[in-house]
Amino acid sequence: MNNDILLTPGPTPLPPQVREALGRPIIHHRTSQYRALFKRTLQGMQTVMQTKSSVICFTSSGTGAMEAAVVNLLSPGDEAIVVLGGKFAERWGALCKAYGITATTVPVAYGDAVDPKQVASALAAHPKAKAVFTTLCETSTGVVYDIPAIAAITRKSSAVLVVDAISGLLADDCRTDEWGVDVVVTGSQKGLMLPPGLAFMSLSERAWALVDQAKTPRFYNDLRLYKKALADDDTPFTSAVSIVVALDEALKLALQAGVPQVIRRCAQLAEATRAGMQAIGLTLFSKRPSNGVTAVNVPSGVDGKQLTKVMYDRSHVMVAGGQGDMAGKIFRFAHMGYISAEDVLAGLRALEEALNSLGYKVTPGAAVKAAEAVLHRSTATVSA
Amino acid sequence: MNNDILLTPGPTPLPPQVREALGRPIIHHRTSQYRALFKRTLQGMQTVMQTKSSVICFTSSGTGAMEAAVVNLLSPGDEAIVVLGGKFAERWGALCKAYGITATTVPVAYGDAVDPKQVASALAAHPKAKAVFTTLCETSTGVVYDIPAIAAITRKSSAVLVVDAISGLLADDCRTDEWGVDVVVTGSQKGLMLPPGLAFMSLSERAWALVDQAKTPRFYNDLRLYKKALADDDTPFTSAVSIVVALDEALKLALQAGVPQVIRRCAQLAEATRAGMQAIGLTLFSKRPSNGVTAVNVPSGVDGKQLTKVMYDRSHVMVAGGQGDMAGKIFRFAHMGYISAEDVLAGLRALEEALNSLGYKVTPGAAVKAAEAVLHRSTATVSA
Repeated sequence: MNNDILLTPGPTPLPPQVREALGRPIIHHRTSQYRALFKRTLQGMQTVMQTKSSVICFTSSGTGAMEAAVVNLLSPGDEAIVVLGGKFAERWGALCKAYGITATTVPVAYGDAVDPKQVASALAAHPKAKAVFTTLCETSTGVVYDIPAIAAITRKSSAVLVVDAISGLLADDCRTDEWGVDVVVTGSQKGLMLPPGLAFMSLSERAWALVDQAKTPRFYNDLRLYKKALADDDTPFTSAVSIVVALDEALKLALQAGVPQVIRRCAQLAEATRAGMQAIGLTLFSKRPSNGVTAVNVPSGVDGKQLTKVMYDRSHVMVAGGQGDMAGKIFRFAHMGYISAEDVLAGLRALEEALNSLGYKVTPGAAVKAAEAVLHRSTATVSA
Repeated sequence: MNNDILLTPGPTPLPPQVREALGRPIIHHRTSQYRALFKRTLQGMQTVMQTKSSVICFTSSGTGAMEAAVVNLLSPGDEAIVVLGGKFAERWGALCKAYGITATTVPVAYGDAVDPKQVASALAAHPKAKAVFTTLCETSTGVVYDIPAIAAITRKSSAVLVVDAISGLLADDCRTDEWGVDVVVTGSQKGLMLPPGLAFMSLSERAWALVDQAKTPRFYNDLRLYKKALADDDTPFTSAVSIVVALDEALKLALQAGVPQVIRRCAQLAEATRAGMQAIGLTLFSKRPSNGVTAVNVPSGVDGKQLTKVMYDRSHVMVAGGQGDMAGKIFRFAHMGYISAEDVLAGLRALEEALNSLGYKVTPGAAVKAAEAVLHRSTATVSA
């Protein structure tokens, strides 16, 4: 009943094992069996988030965990720095505004990556800043930031570094502890291969120290309640049980392959996608392209909104358009989670057809051929 | 792999149609198909919530919607009245405290129903109260409150009435508009026959008028963002798509039967459960028993925690124990949602066996027989 090929940066396609788990009879959450499963999933999340810190699980979209970071770390009137380079970075800004945090923004043009020196300057100018909010992969622009460099700079200040890795986790590398990232937030519907509904957060000791000081009112996402419940492998409020059960299956898949291999695979698909785009004369919007999503400029003369519509109507391939000011100007191909090489090739084929039908003439098969060449080479390298 | 019979007041068992929907390939939420489905589910929710007001859908547990009510209606320093008769009522109190609301409590002993006159007195003593927070069915005590009487009283004041119908909806009648209830909140994992992960809220015009005035900071559950998105049949943040798709199936089942019939069926199961308990000499904890969950006193000499454990270990029937101060003193049988007459009878059979094994002697089959008599009579009445 649904043959769509989703190349959207969330929700991403679900593996059969995850779908099977979602459809199981529901289990009760206040049982030793469920607690054991929940504990195992949080341990798995520590592995994929590359941290020894406990992972907190919220029943919410990713934005719920972003909000949890703001309200649990800061108090009204506190200063913070927000790296502002896309729609999701703007959400950090909106959250700070909603909660009375004085945010200094580090402006970054859409499609550019932040220069870590800009963060250093902002921290030097605002020594009282308690947090730096930024993004691993800015989903709206397909840009991956240089988090290790930003983390090294932030570590020299008294601020904690908070990274939105919602679309980045398990696509772009996120060495939370090794790089010294204090807080990482993520969501279930991207690299984790789950439906939306769960959000996760890890906090360093430096970040936990802020939680007790923060005066922003909070309840549903009050980390103090979650920490207390965690001692019993529990949550303070009923979790989205069926998605937690499915997470257990998704983590088996990811951990069996291994986090480095999952990321390497996304990198290969991203490289193949970029090669396909460039083979038909398209240019990348992202100056520092992520492994999870490729943002491409709509060629001049083509209506960007028509382009994604035609791809879906003709080929059942769903890609994302641009958001906000980028609407109609870019389109975005995701290649994270359970998206396969075949899906990527089908996407490029659909793109070729749609472009031809909209008057931008490309040699049929050119994008697919270039992408396949990358995939062949990558496979050869991996098996060598 | 899971033959448990869940008689817990959430999560409740899932119908096969719901399980099938949960396991479908994921669909993207920013499409006209999804918007149409989402719109249809919210219209269905209006029917089950018995209101013409728009229904808001959050991706969260029920507590997320309770929090949404507090932060969207009130400002720090505002006065409110909380009817305090159980663990979930206490959550209203905790929410008010977290957000700086001065709450006057109307104390109600666990197991008792509030006397609506107490609410009238509280409103008279606190004419500046902006909201009355109460519960349709207090899940922790199995008590259903006289909401129509409380609503009639509250309507005479300037306060809005906010009702937690998380475990009450589709079990106990909730005539939102007819009774003049301003705000109703509910969750997905009870009468709605879904996994946890979605929460819902309806607001009267009086309540919406407060939303624009409320100064409590908020973002993830800011109703102004939800209202704006609703104009496009959308949500401001990614919904738990798979549960929304399953909601569409669950609503088909509920609406096909009809809301009055669903409630009547719960009432029959509740009556049968009570008859079963009384036939073996047990007494009800609830002075005004709800249709959704029956709270029963653990007979003296029996260890209440052992009782529920033995029921599960011997018979795979899971019932809920008491919460907080009620732990070990009561146990709770749910009979809402997809819980069937057969499940209720299996629960009573398991209870008889567990009681006998723990030294409280009952005639085997006595509870089941009494319950069956009620079910037979009810069936006869319905088909007559």
